[in-house]
Amino acid sequence: MANQVSKQIFKIMLSFFLFVLLLSDTVSSVRKSIDLKKPCKHFVLHLHNIAYDSDNADNATSATIVNPIGLGNFNFGKFVVFDNPVTMDEHYLSEPVARAQGFFFYNKKTTYNTWMTFTLLFNSTQHKGTMTIIDANPMMEPTRDLSIVGGTGDFLMTRGIVTFTTDTFEGSKYFRIKLDIKLYECY
Amino acid sequence: MANQVSKQIFKIMLSFFLFVLLLSDTVSSVRKSIDLKKPCKHFVLHLHNIAYDSDNADNATSATIVNPIGLGNFNFGKFVVFDNPVTMDEHYLSEPVARAQGFFFYNKKTTYNTWMTFTLLFNSTQHKGTMTIIDANPMMEPTRDLSIVGGTGDFLMTRGIVTFTTDTFEGSKYFRIKLDIKLYECY
Amino acid sequence: MANQVSKQIFKIMLSFFLFVLLLSDTVSSVRKSIDLKKPCKHFVLHLHNIAYDSDNADNATSATIVNPIGLGNFNFGKFVVFDNPVTMDEHYLSEPVARAQGFFFYNKKTTYNTWMTFTLLFNSTQHKGTMTIIDANPMMEPTRDLSIVGGTGDFLMTRGIVTFTTDTFEGSKYFRIKLDIKLYECY
Repeated sequence: MANQVSKQIFKIMLSFFLFVLLLSDTVSSVRKSIDLKKPCKHFVLHLHNIAYDSDNADNATSATIVNPIGLGNFNFGKFVVFDNPVTMDEHYLSEPVARAQGFFFYNKKTTYNTWMTFTLLFNSTQHKGTMTIIDANPMMEPTRDLSIVGGTGDFLMTRGIVTFTTDTFEGSKYFRIKLDIKLYECY
Repeated sequence: MANQVSKQIFKIMLSFFLFVLLLSDTVSSVRKSIDLKKPCKHFVLHLHNIAYDSDNADNATSATIVNPIGLGNFNFGKFVVFDNPVTMDEHYLSEPVARAQGFFFYNKKTTYNTWMTFTLLFNSTQHKGTMTIIDANPMMEPTRDLSIVGGTGDFLMTRGIVTFTTDTFEGSKYFRIKLDIKLYECY
Repeated sequence: MANQVSKQIFKIMLSFFLFVLLLSDTVSSVRKSIDLKKPCKHFVLHLHNIAYDSDNADNATSATIVNPIGLGNFNFGKFVVFDNPVTMDEHYLSEPVARAQGFFFYNKKTTYNTWMTFTLLFNSTQHKGTMTIIDANPMMEPTRDLSIVGGTGDFLMTRGIVTFTTDTFEGSKYFRIKLDIKLYECY
């Protein structure tokens, strides 16, 4: 009789086992887990912007395409398009690991404040692909977080944030921003 | 013999238990579930836009930076930048709980139609952080849904939609939009 | 005694079963799995752009709202707004299944290169809703991937990529792009 019991138990066990296997299969195909305390990728880059001033066409990496409209004293309406080099270290002349292509514009009457969107295009031996950033950039704050909303290639479907720190700001001629990139969705 | 059977069963049970524990751990670190019938956050705000007309610099919250180009009669090409107050109730003079910073432009020959992107910047005791919206805004429709594609701070990595209802539209001077925000990804 | 053993085992089994059920419930409410080898939706569309040249107001679907600023010879700063028809086949006169509303601008000194964002608005018997694309569009490449970062209606909360292939490019008058849309998040 104990034998019969153990046979019956074996059958139940087996069905349990198959059920759990099925479940584990479902789970394994679910997206990678998201842990906001621990990015799945984390790296730092530096973005360099040299504003076009009609005398520096060779060096310029950005240019104003719409001038300020005169509402307040903080460039309201100034619209800037850029194709900026992005380097691993802080030196403008280092070999770029990415380009930052996009635009920003000033939108506040009472202080310097921008709104910005751009794509990081990686085309090195290490990384190929894009990631796209879009958010307000309250540039007078010491640091600010911007949303990374998507990507392609090596960064396909990525999401996360990038923390901006203005390393250097030389009037409207040149600025350098430290990009502290934290991705929470990686595939 | 029954004793032997039960011992053996106990061992199998134990390994099952550990396996299921392992599985449950995997599951617990997976992103929060998404239920499109029940947003993880749901709230209503009101956005106020006062267009700059060269006489109202003090009150203006938005301004045209590119004028219509004359293709059709519906402002095609008009490009507007804004830094709009966002309030809990419908009153323009209520204490703002957020700013809406971004732009919209008209893009249709046959009717008034806009495309829009902006960031809601929260900086109150209740909420700190941003969420960014981007989508078409067919403004002649009674309601329209726009995508929320990312966020930072209290809204880190959020996604969802916002349903627009034009509460008030006073020519090109002032409009107020009800923002019915439904977030389906919260962390 | 075997009877007692089997009763006890039954109890343990039952608690296991309830535990596993609980777990499976958690799993079932987790977002649909993401498999980057197999999009949850995959379809091809064709986007048609007829540039406004001041003589073709009736046919034009796009127009320059900011002219090139003269930095380099590749239209740097040219900013184009559009409301383009999107069809199932390659024929411009086919019934559109969607509109593509958004803008692009040129941003490179050394070659033709654009950055682009737009929304596909579906309003057919088959699909209602939007999906929004944002990314660099290095138009001289034979193909390029752009990020789909959100959607509404039938495409609520969707994400994925769209692969662009320039089918036809007739100077600045007309171009047609094949949109190979791969969604990896569907709800």
